[in-house]
Amino acid sequence: MTVLKEFPLSKVYQLLEPGPVVLLSTAHKTHANVMTMSWHMMVEFEPPLVACVVSGANYSFNALRSTGECVIAIPARKLAQKVVQVGNTSGREIDKFETFGLTPTRAKRVRPPLVAECFANLECKVADNRLVNTYNLFILEVLAAWHDPAQKNPKTIHHCGYGEFVVDGKRIRLKSKMR
Amino acid sequence: MTVLKEFPLSKVYQLLEPGPVVLLSTAHKTHANVMTMSWHMMVEFEPPLVACVVSGANYSFNALRSTGECVIAIPARKLAQKVVQVGNTSGREIDKFETFGLTPTRAKRVRPPLVAECFANLECKVADNRLVNTYNLFILEVLAAWHDPAQKNPKTIHHCGYGEFVVDGKRIRLKSKMR
Repeated sequence: MTVLKEFPLSKVYQLLEPGPVVLLSTAHKTHANVMTMSWHMMVEFEPPLVACVVSGANYSFNALRSTGECVIAIPARKLAQKVVQVGNTSGREIDKFETFGLTPTRAKRVRPPLVAECFANLECKVADNRLVNTYNLFILEVLAAWHDPAQKNPKTIHHCGYGEFVVDGKRIRLKSKMR
Repeated sequence: MTVLKEFPLSKVYQLLEPGPVVLLSTAHKTHANVMTMSWHMMVEFEPPLVACVVSGANYSFNALRSTGECVIAIPARKLAQKVVQVGNTSGREIDKFETFGLTPTRAKRVRPPLVAECFANLECKVADNRLVNTYNLFILEVLAAWHDPAQKNPKTIHHCGYGEFVVDGKRIRLKSKMR
């Protein structure tokens, strides 16, 4: 069984800044759902703020807008096939957690579930909705973060369009003052 | 000499969606400058809209806010060392184009220069500044895009914090309906 450990909020940007494909988990009434998302970025270090765009065509859009809560779950390379299946289907028609064998796990601060198979999970609430009507752009605050210590040095995937992904390659370290 | 070719606006998202480190070029009065940026995301496919966060501590912030124009230039792996140097210095003190041997090249639709060494350049104007005061978050519209056909299959770099980068690795293709 996966035991998730708390992850420091001050390091959340290190998970999202590289631009991985993520899963977005929501819960509307009793219905938990999950979608695939690549349009996100960091906005502030701490408390961590994240911007994301969720198309109005996505079933998750109304859940996120009406509940103001979500979980950003970050999948490693080994979940790539499921990530695509999640992206190609709608929560209107199926229970994606059940269909794709993803395990919803209770979050601490929000109602949407964590995704146990992901190496990191970020519990978020909507902090600013001024650009939701114009661009479907939400500003989220990360309230709590978790990681799976059993997944060491996970490689993430980045979406290049039409099901083409680039997988993390070599890590390089350059002398830098950049945070 | 580098000859840049026009790049279709409909494919701009394929450049930014994977989350590469980019350079942001601005021009204030007669002073062109360039900074390193990782906090950006796609907002709309076409016309392409891009959101980015530029810290108020950056010299580029005032240039972007007051002129409403910038160029997003995407460097390949081979420019990583220069990308870090650009990120560690300020245009207040030095001419970064000259100091780091980057070649400013005239853009078509905006005053800030393209960066000739980058494999892609996106000419942008600020389309929405409603979140600038709160989060330093700009919504940009891409007016024109260029690529360097001599740089085939460039690998990009993604910033993980404190000068650690992950370089693009293997490309994988999974059957997908996702754009």
